[in-house]
Amino acid sequence: MHILVTGAAGMIGRKLTARLVKDGGLNGKSIDRLTLIDVVAPEKPAGFSGAVELSASDLSAAGIAAKAVASKPDVIFHLAGVVSGEAETDFEKGYRVNLDGTRALLEAIRAAAYKPKVIFTSSIAVYGAPFPRSIPDEFHLTPLTSYGTQKAICELLLADYSRRGFLEGVGIRLPTICVRPGKPNKAASGFFSGIIREPLSGHEALLPVADSVRHTHASPRAAIGFLIHAASLTPEKLGPRINLAMPGISCTVGEQIEALRRVAGDKVAGRIRRAPDELVQRIVAGWAERLDATRARELGFKAEAAFDDIIRTHIEDELGGKIA
Amino acid sequence: MHILVTGAAGMIGRKLTARLVKDGGLNGKSIDRLTLIDVVAPEKPAGFSGAVELSASDLSAAGIAAKAVASKPDVIFHLAGVVSGEAETDFEKGYRVNLDGTRALLEAIRAAAYKPKVIFTSSIAVYGAPFPRSIPDEFHLTPLTSYGTQKAICELLLADYSRRGFLEGVGIRLPTICVRPGKPNKAASGFFSGIIREPLSGHEALLPVADSVRHTHASPRAAIGFLIHAASLTPEKLGPRINLAMPGISCTVGEQIEALRRVAGDKVAGRIRRAPDELVQRIVAGWAERLDATRARELGFKAEAAFDDIIRTHIEDELGGKIA
Repeated sequence: MHILVTGAAGMIGRKLTARLVKDGGLNGKSIDRLTLIDVVAPEKPAGFSGAVELSASDLSAAGIAAKAVASKPDVIFHLAGVVSGEAETDFEKGYRVNLDGTRALLEAIRAAAYKPKVIFTSSIAVYGAPFPRSIPDEFHLTPLTSYGTQKAICELLLADYSRRGFLEGVGIRLPTICVRPGKPNKAASGFFSGIIREPLSGHEALLPVADSVRHTHASPRAAIGFLIHAASLTPEKLGPRINLAMPGISCTVGEQIEALRRVAGDKVAGRIRRAPDELVQRIVAGWAERLDATRARELGFKAEAAFDDIIRTHIEDELGGKIA
Repeated sequence: MHILVTGAAGMIGRKLTARLVKDGGLNGKSIDRLTLIDVVAPEKPAGFSGAVELSASDLSAAGIAAKAVASKPDVIFHLAGVVSGEAETDFEKGYRVNLDGTRALLEAIRAAAYKPKVIFTSSIAVYGAPFPRSIPDEFHLTPLTSYGTQKAICELLLADYSRRGFLEGVGIRLPTICVRPGKPNKAASGFFSGIIREPLSGHEALLPVADSVRHTHASPRAAIGFLIHAASLTPEKLGPRINLAMPGISCTVGEQIEALRRVAGDKVAGRIRRAPDELVQRIVAGWAERLDATRARELGFKAEAAFDDIIRTHIEDELGGKIA
């Protein structure tokens, strides 16, 4: 089996590639070839004995998408895209990369006249406030960012290309990924991870919002699980509504902190410092708090059972089991 | 005031132009200039004393959209598009005209750096079965045609361009327009109009579905009213959710026929012949039966009160008050 991963150099892309290499197969077939694409050069995955093609290229540039699918990969994980903040500050780049890049990939597949499985990472940014207490699967998409708009458009394209028989698409709306490893970044959502990650490694973390703020989270490990599971779903099982809200843990910031205290103790939880930030508060107020994700759960997608598990997963996967 | 109408040679485009000319103004300002665009040459509207520019051109072709907005029309009615059937049979043309054409128009407006009002005709084809008994305003869009997909994508673009301040958009999802004047066409929805229009002019009409089939209708006159009213709405009144399901009359085919009998008598209603068609039955089964359209009603959009009114409107507007 030949697998193509776009956005392969990103956090999810690297973890997905590592998981595919570790599993050695997908849907019961062994993986003998990997094509990894990103705008920055992806690294050669360690421990993979099959053929690997690495490409530093932009799918929205002429001819790149056609080249990427010329060898007809069986499964395509399409993760590439510019993030929310960048799509908002650079309007043209957001549309070029997130919309035109995806459309170029879908068109290249149509032109290649074969029918791969395409798993696309959408986002809960497709939703826009006001929301009900918990968002049902049939709630409309009224994004309040260009990023969310681009994701919602790509979902519609993926569904139409699937319906027309050009590919077998699955769009998965990822909740906020937490605990995000690495350095603190400037994303408005960064603190959700920061208040767990930083204290666990001995550093102070700033909390810009009230303890009562509620949000939905899934670990990087759960997100990789969603991708792998999405690849196993048949069109018969999915039906025409191929874009799915993924499950996650809905909890308040206060509950996140209490979970941290239970898992890592008072000393670690004490490293969080309240530093209210009105801008962040305003941005976060427009985000979804909770999603039913009923269909995804029924289709077998699994998130953690409690936020404590998300913290334990981070300690295992990123800290070698050690707390500072 | 300068008004641009795209798709100006179509049925709605011609009726809208005639109404604008008759009114002489829009939103309390007099109209001194009209630009009419369509792929087939639009006719010069009768009785208009202002400047008229007629253009037979395709918005998706290079430079056309920029030319259309170069003189900065204050209000743009964007009606242009290929219809449902053609978008399904010609995949590339549907995306080029309905998606790329609209995007070219929005991009030309952004490049012209001014902020016109843009009224876009979407369609209830943005919805896809299964539906609840009546579709609420917050129901998701899962179109089951490429046409519906293209309309849903354009709605998302219009909302994002509005949010970013490039224009003031309003998207209106038109129900089935009934009674559609002119010759019978091959559209699967054609019979909804045919069973009224043909008997009223002395001809037999074929009914391919059961009397129990329910659907939502608005007259051409009501549709023009929606467009004019949409142009009067301020961004403050609309809020960020600028795409609206329009109201209509939800009734069964049997109720349509009874209304025809009430308005025009047994002899006219007797010109409908049942001729079941499995293909049409299957297509129609996937269509929305009823929409709440709560927000549109609250915002002042008005449809007919009963199907009888739709028939009377047709007799007045198209038959000079006479029944055959």
